[in-house]
This record gives sequence, structure tokens and C-alpha cells, in this order.
Amino acid sequence: MKIVIIGYGTAGMTAAGYARITNRKAEIVVFEKRPYAIYHPCSMPDVIARVLPSWDLVKEEAPRMPRFKVHTSTVVEEVDLDGKKLVARNLKTGEKITEEFDRLILATGSVPYVPRAIKIADPSGVYVLKVVEDGVAIDEAASKYKSAVVVGGSALGIEVAHALRLRGLDVTLIEYCPSLMPGKLDPELAEEAKRKLEEEGVKVVLGKGVSLVEGPEGAKKVHAGDEVFEAGFVVMATGVRPEVTLAKQMGLEIGRTGGIKVDEHMRTSHPDVYAGGDNAEVKDLVTGEPTLSLFASTALHMGRVAGINAAGGSATFKGVLNVWIVNLHGFMFGGVGCTEEMAKKKGLKVISVAASAREQPEGYPEAKEVTVKLVVDAETCRVLGGQAVGYGRVKEYLNLLSLLIAKQGTVDDLLEMEAAYTPSVCDIIHPLHAVANAAIRRLR
Amino acid sequence: MKIVIIGYGTAGMTAAGYARITNRKAEIVVFEKRPYAIYHPCSMPDVIARVLPSWDLVKEEAPRMPRFKVHTSTVVEEVDLDGKKLVARNLKTGEKITEEFDRLILATGSVPYVPRAIKIADPSGVYVLKVVEDGVAIDEAASKYKSAVVVGGSALGIEVAHALRLRGLDVTLIEYCPSLMPGKLDPELAEEAKRKLEEEGVKVVLGKGVSLVEGPEGAKKVHAGDEVFEAGFVVMATGVRPEVTLAKQMGLEIGRTGGIKVDEHMRTSHPDVYAGGDNAEVKDLVTGEPTLSLFASTALHMGRVAGINAAGGSATFKGVLNVWIVNLHGFMFGGVGCTEEMAKKKGLKVISVAASAREQPEGYPEAKEVTVKLVVDAETCRVLGGQAVGYGRVKEYLNLLSLLIAKQGTVDDLLEMEAAYTPSVCDIIHPLHAVANAAIRRLR
Repeated sequence: MKIVIIGYGTAGMTAAGYARITNRKAEIVVFEKRPYAIYHPCSMPDVIARVLPSWDLVKEEAPRMPRFKVHTSTVVEEVDLDGKKLVARNLKTGEKITEEFDRLILATGSVPYVPRAIKIADPSGVYVLKVVEDGVAIDEAASKYKSAVVVGGSALGIEVAHALRLRGLDVTLIEYCPSLMPGKLDPELAEEAKRKLEEEGVKVVLGKGVSLVEGPEGAKKVHAGDEVFEAGFVVMATGVRPEVTLAKQMGLEIGRTGGIKVDEHMRTSHPDVYAGGDNAEVKDLVTGEPTLSLFASTALHMGRVAGINAAGGSATFKGVLNVWIVNLHGFMFGGVGCTEEMAKKKGLKVISVAASAREQPEGYPEAKEVTVKLVVDAETCRVLGGQAVGYGRVKEYLNLLSLLIAKQGTVDDLLEMEAAYTPSVCDIIHPLHAVANAAIRRLR
Repeated sequence: MKIVIIGYGTAGMTAAGYARITNRKAEIVVFEKRPYAIYHPCSMPDVIARVLPSWDLVKEEAPRMPRFKVHTSTVVEEVDLDGKKLVARNLKTGEKITEEFDRLILATGSVPYVPRAIKIADPSGVYVLKVVEDGVAIDEAASKYKSAVVVGGSALGIEVAHALRLRGLDVTLIEYCPSLMPGKLDPELAEEAKRKLEEEGVKVVLGKGVSLVEGPEGAKKVHAGDEVFEAGFVVMATGVRPEVTLAKQMGLEIGRTGGIKVDEHMRTSHPDVYAGGDNAEVKDLVTGEPTLSLFASTALHMGRVAGINAAGGSATFKGVLNVWIVNLHGFMFGGVGCTEEMAKKKGLKVISVAASAREQPEGYPEAKEVTVKLVVDAETCRVLGGQAVGYGRVKEYLNLLSLLIAKQGTVDDLLEMEAAYTPSVCDIIHPLHAVANAAIRRLR
């Protein structure tokens, strides 16, 4: 059996690894258009910020496994599904490669997207951050110029703005929506993220749509609403779109989100083709609706399931909660499942409640504060979503909520949770006990 | 309605708080024999270690609530269940207090216990650590003498030994069983805890039973096996027993563990008497067997349920997983549910597997290592227990396992867990993914 994987990001990499384990005899071939096999996109803001000392740490060679080959700098140009073969081209040598396959896994990821409403009159000094080359270019611009404008107040935009600020630049972060992390953090928690960025010296501009980016590198002008922001360079962090060019060419079914339609086995509309990662349309476990999941953390699971199934094993992918976290030098925020705003938009009958808690008893010197918000189904008392903000153990709280929501748990499960306690680490009342307690009172 | 609570530790305090919320009109009276209302027993090793600067931080006044009174320095001497009244005595003034009640909550906790096999020929310079007075006495001894022997290698003994070592004393810790944390940590993980204590300079003696403690304070001799250990003073951390004197006097049913028998509502064999905390016999959620739960973390939940029900509300207590954690200056270890040893003793068909994981990707400077062990039912694949050891986020992993076990989750639930990821905080593969993966392979 031969399995071909197109794309070697998190989904492709995990698919390859699990295909290898599932079927020791299968031949596995990967085509990756980047000149390096593996890279860690989420680490790039940390290199820009100098938290990670070198761009070399962001790249990795492919692991050595038997009957396994990764073609880098190679782009797949055509797939013949009936003939079960494909044609690829080596971008460096121009060489054409023909490869047969029994099963195909599309892990083509996503591509940066700039809304049409934003006119880029002069593209010099305008960057996106998707691959390592983008990161290096931004890094160089950060050494050359004293100021930058970042467009887009979601995770990537916030991380880049923060990183550039740590490098000493004057940074303006512009978000079209009235609060940061739109759709992901409810406004009152987004306000805390904004305050942190402002404390660090980032200028945050909310509710203004960028219409025009003009001027040469070194003297960029970004028009947003009635204002013009000047800077040495601009980073567009306005989102990504699933990379489905090849899938469309192959005639695979594309969902209304723009992602490739897949079933619970990560199988596309063609029985021998699987997909996973940013390019796949999956089920939102809370709303039951189709969604994209543009996170490495979910690409990992999609890749695992696609890899196992493509290799002849059996695994299912139930859907996503889209847990996420941003870390700004110890100040963290993140969410999982449904926000209050999203729940209301969907017409769900929910209550929501936030509680702040000190993580350790009085007197312990390192105690930190966190705020946790819960979104709870008003009838079933099931937890549908959670958000957390603060200097404390935000990741722990998000992961607990992720597990709870996946197991269809209620606020009572949370209140009854037996939590490890020792005062030099934590208080006896867990922050999730505190917020569950508040939610239960609200529900009565 | 009048609710009387005997004992104001974690269970009594929580019972009082939830009784107040449940029934705004009820009168709540607490009798506590200590001269201070509230204290934090788990913080005492931290004061001895000077992590907490003062004994004052370990004591607290009772909160002010309407129709609520706490009698300190007052011991309940007799309870007349038929007449629904009790007689208490103020230990300072000698005054007798008669109090009527509709509902009674016994939160009498536990008392230190020294096995009969240990003969204490001279009790001078021999301490236990239960109440603040004990802590202050040990603290003073630690300032006076250069060496100490701690008898008992469970959590309290380890914490006290570590605290005294941080104070600069020569410390010998003696445990009767062949490894530390017997019944709580499997030997290979207990070995890591031992190594840490030895690194810090604690002399750890395993598999030796103390038979005799003799000699005056300042020149104590502790006979264990064929050796004699000399030290300025001795701390006996040989365990606690439920304090059920009053319960026996009242004719309440006592279980085979020595704890007061209670039902799911924390109601004793008398319909108007509830119990919770160290003195109650509850159900082990993994084995289904009766057990004691000598932890503040579970006393909290027992007290909540007893308080709500005594006040006319309705809540149930399903049982305990006995999650616990010990923190030695950033090096932590803990467990939840069943150990491998315990599972085998009970004849459960389990597999168990441990995995070590680095918490952050290569290159990040603060990455820490942890080892997590899972005990899994070989047929249902349900997780029955877990242990974690290391400098990392041990508490997060234990709490996730606690929630998972409570929700009767499997290793697949763990492998499929969507975990928040950002490389400056954590790696994309969660340590629980890694160990779940290893367990799944073992199960095949």
C-alpha cells in the first residue's frame, strides 16, 4: 500500500506518524512545497520577540522512518483520481515527479487572506506571517525600522504586535471589530487583553477598518476610518483561508465554510482521499455546525485520525472545541467552545458568569489572579464554553474546560471536581469551583 | 431551624457556609475546641520552612454572617439525640453551654495516631503536627536543635522533613514501608521523590520500623530495625485516625474503616445527624469500597453536601478519588484514584504505563520534565488512576485525570483531548496525550 500526503504541517506530520504506526508495511510519501520539511509556525512571534534565540529553532528535518520519504520544495500540480497517480514538480530543479498512490491525504493547510476592502496600493513593506521566510523578513524589517502597524487583532496579530513591541518598536495594532479577539473572547475579557497590550506600550485601535495601505517601505501609510497611521512597515494579520486549490481541481466536495468536506473518518467525498488541518471543514462540537478549525492543536487530532484511517486502521474525529491560548510574557488569555456573544447569535439559551480568583491563599508571595468565564446551557446546565484571562494557570483551566465540554459535563461536575490542593501551589477552592458556584447560583 | 456544627475545620467551615446560603433563616452554631476559629493545617510545613513568614497567617477569624456563631475553646461533651440538645464546655472559663438543635453536623476531623508497635519511652521532644500549637512547638525545637528525626514517609512526614531541612537541620526521615508515600505512589515514582529529598540533604531510611523512641529532648534516640538514629527532637507523622468519640457516644454507626457511616447525603445512621471530613467513611469511586478520605480537598466537598442537606437543600456526594499533591520547592508529586499496586491488590485487571515528557518545545529556556503514570482498566480502557512527578505542571495533570476519572473517561478520551497550545507555554503534544498514546499501544 502506498499513502501519499500533500503538505507536511501539523496535520500532515501527524498523519504520517500515525500511518506509519498503523501500517508498518505501507510506503508513505510526502510532498511539501516549502524548502524545509518541518517548521513551527506558532513559534515565529517568539523568535521575532527574541524569546527564542534563532530562526534555526523553528525549522526541523523530517524524522527518519522506514519506507518513508519527504519531498521538500515540491509542489503537487495535478492529481488523477481515477488513475490513482499524481504529478509533482520540484521547485528547485524543475524536475517532474510522477507518483502513484492507494490513499491520499490532503494536508494543504491555509493561506493568508487580506479582505478585498483593504486596498494595498504599494505592497513594499507589507508582510504576512505564514512561513519562516515571512518571519525572517519581518525580523529584518524590525531591525531596520522604528515603527510598525499590525492589522488584525486576533491571536496572530496580537502576538506579532507584542513581539515587535518587545523589540522596542512603536507598534499600532488595528482591529476592525470593536474588541480584540472578535468571536473568540467576549468584550469584557478582551478589554483585559487590550489593557495588557497598552501597558506594554502597544497602541490599540479598535473599531476601525483599514481601507488603504500606501507609501513605500519605510514610510507606509495605513488609512483606517478617518485616521492615517504611519510606520516603517505593516504586518497584515487579517486571517487565513483553507488552501483547497488542489481539492477543487480534483472535484472534491467543498463545504460552505470553504473547507473540504470530510466525514468522521476525515474522509473526503472521494473514498480514497482524506483531509485534515486548516483545509478541512469539521463539526463544531458545541453548536453542531460546520466550522473551520485553524489551530495546530486540532490539526494534530485531525492528522492522527486521517493517518490511521488512510493506513487501514480505524479512528473517528468527533469535532472541535477550538481551544486556544495566547501568552504575552506570562499574561495569558484563551478560550474553548462557545463565547456568550456566539451563543446569543446562535439563539442558544445560555447564562454566563465570570469570577476572579486568587490562585493561592493569603500570604503566599507568588499568588496570581485569574478571571474565568463560563457559558452554560440554561436548561441542561451543560458547560458550552469558557474563557480565562490572567497571569495564572490559564492553560490548566482551559484544558479542564475542554475535557469537561468534550465529556458533555455540567456546572455541577465542575463544582464537584476533586482538585489537588497544597497551599504553596494553589488554594483549596479551585478557580473553576468558584465560577461553577457562581453559575449554579445564577441558574437558580 | 437550628443547625449545630461540631468542628470548624475544612468540612465544618464549608458546611456552615453552604448551610447559610441554602437556608437564610436557619440559626447556625459552631462548637470548636481550638482557641482560634479557623486554621490552615496544610500551610504549617510552609511556616516551618519559612516559605510563609508567620504563624499568624495560618489562623483566621470566623467570617461574619447573620444568625451565625462560632464558639471557640469549647468542647461538646454530650449529645442527647432524643431530646435534640447538647452540652458543651468552655475550656477557658469552665462554663457549661446547653444548646438545642434540629440538625447536627459532625465535622470532628481526625487525631494523630502513633502505632502501638512504637514505644515512646520518653515523650519529651516528641511532636506531632496537627494544630497550630504543634507547629509552633516544632518551629521552636527547630531553632533550638541541629537535628531531627521524622517518622513516617507519607505527605505530612515528607513535607515536615523537607521544611526542617530548609531550616538547615540534619534530618532523617524513616518510613516503615520499602518506599515513600506507600499506597499512594507506585515504587518507581516514589523513588523520584526520594531522590529529590536526598538531593536536598534529607537522609531517607526505608523499610525500617521504629520500635522505640527514648532519651530526653535534645538527645533523642530513635530505634529503627537494627539502627539507632540520634537527634534533637522527633516528629511523629505516622498517620491520623477519625475522631469519632462523640459519634460512638451517640450510638451512630461506625464503618469498618473506623469512620462514621454516611449515605450519599452525608447523613449518618441518625436522620438528623450529618458528618463530613476526616471522620466520615465514604465510597472510593474507583473500587467502590468504603474508605477514609483524609484530605482537605475532599472535606470541602463533604462539608458542602452535609451543609446543604442539613439546611434543607439537596445535594449528593458520590465518593472520592483522593487526589493529592506534595510540593517540595517546585518539585511536585501526586496522585489520583488507584495506584498500580492497589489495583493489583484488589485483583483488578489493569495495565499501567508511565511516560516522561518535556513540557515545551526544544529551545524554550524554561522547559520542565514530568513523568505521568496511568492505571487503566484492561477491558473497558477506563482510566482508574494516575500519578505525576516532576518540576512541571503536575497539578494540571492530576486535576485533568481527576475530572476524567470522575466522568468515567477512557484513555481514548485522553488521547482525543483538545489541549490549548502555544509554544512559549507548552508543547503541542500534551503529557497526557503522550501517556495515553503509550497506554493505548500497551492495550493492543
